[in-house]
Amino acid sequence: MQGPPQPTSSATAYTPTDRTVPTRAPQRASYDKDVVHAILDEGYVCHLGFVRDGAPVVLPTLYARVGERLYVHGSTGSRPLRTTGRADAGLAVCVTVTHVDGLVLARSAFHHSINYRSAVVHGIAHQVTDPEEKRLALDALVDHAVPGRSRDSRPANTKEFAATAVIRLDLDEVSAKIRTGGVNDEPEDLALPHWAGVVPLRKGYATPVPDPGLAPGTELPDYLAVR
Amino acid sequence: MQGPPQPTSSATAYTPTDRTVPTRAPQRASYDKDVVHAILDEGYVCHLGFVRDGAPVVLPTLYARVGERLYVHGSTGSRPLRTTGRADAGLAVCVTVTHVDGLVLARSAFHHSINYRSAVVHGIAHQVTDPEEKRLALDALVDHAVPGRSRDSRPANTKEFAATAVIRLDLDEVSAKIRTGGVNDEPEDLALPHWAGVVPLRKGYATPVPDPGLAPGTELPDYLAVR
Repeated sequence: MQGPPQPTSSATAYTPTDRTVPTRAPQRASYDKDVVHAILDEGYVCHLGFVRDGAPVVLPTLYARVGERLYVHGSTGSRPLRTTGRADAGLAVCVTVTHVDGLVLARSAFHHSINYRSAVVHGIAHQVTDPEEKRLALDALVDHAVPGRSRDSRPANTKEFAATAVIRLDLDEVSAKIRTGGVNDEPEDLALPHWAGVVPLRKGYATPVPDPGLAPGTELPDYLAVR
Repeated sequence: MQGPPQPTSSATAYTPTDRTVPTRAPQRASYDKDVVHAILDEGYVCHLGFVRDGAPVVLPTLYARVGERLYVHGSTGSRPLRTTGRADAGLAVCVTVTHVDGLVLARSAFHHSINYRSAVVHGIAHQVTDPEEKRLALDALVDHAVPGRSRDSRPANTKEFAATAVIRLDLDEVSAKIRTGGVNDEPEDLALPHWAGVVPLRKGYATPVPDPGLAPGTELPDYLAVR
């Protein structure tokens, strides 16, 4: 693959920095690469933050991870990429991916919480200009949503390829934050009559809805089996 | 309720501004208040964006809507609120709530998409200092996750009340963006043998897991019935 080399650190964890050490609940933070990768890989959209005219902007955006690199989808007309301007001028971004796993209902209002996993990536994003890297990134974006799907679709033609823009963000200044488990009520509240526990949220695919114009004989692929 | 009065506009739509008119797919934008409210009310976390030392920060955060006002949960030690400093100094924020409803699998890689609904709120957030408004906001935060829950839990005591901070953001500069429906393939691709269609994502509560120390006789409340 052309373009800048992948970060080559063999460390199993990201190095904490001032802005990746949380001021609240630091025991929920993780810098483990496997933990971060799993959170990133499970999401469908990230929330891409950037600064425009001095004010924050947060937009939901498609993305994919390849090794220690995040690719974020755009079009050549979209705001963050127009802000970037020339390919070598970077854009300061914060990319956050969050999964809400369950609602934690405590006997006390104060101890209500959610079980969640989030990953926050800080850095400077650059537009991908190398055609080979861009092709791999576009495949990764399709495969991120449905693994294996890029091989089962028509690849982008020249016009479509030119109409799509991708920005790259190296995974360097990264942290995860995770809450799992049950209710943390105060001991004096345990006898209260309120129901307490965790309400998990449902995940995964529901029944696929085929396009009405499918070519005759087109079967539902195995990779879409309802999980 | 004390504190600043609610915005009183009786308009049914927010007024578009330069930063709430999308540069891509403007036909997917909506400024209808009912549409925006429904998106905001269905989420569990928002993504709160602010600027720190010139760089964007995006953090997942609990929130609730009350009329034309958004309340975002924090603690007095958390970063955005420390940045705010004094209660009357506002913090420029962007609050985004996104629902991913389905994966749109086209015959062509280029036309892969997702069905989603997002709401983006720009504005200046202020810390809530009025005790009565804060009490209502804390109830709303609990009821946002599980409607009716605040009446079925022990209210915050003085210490808990002081340890929680809430910031308020008026719904004024707001837009929604929505993609629904099926696949938009090119006519010349329709005969390709690739499966195409929409894969909806599962939603709602899974089976609640009770705390092992529930008081004897505590039944699962009706508001937690699996939907």
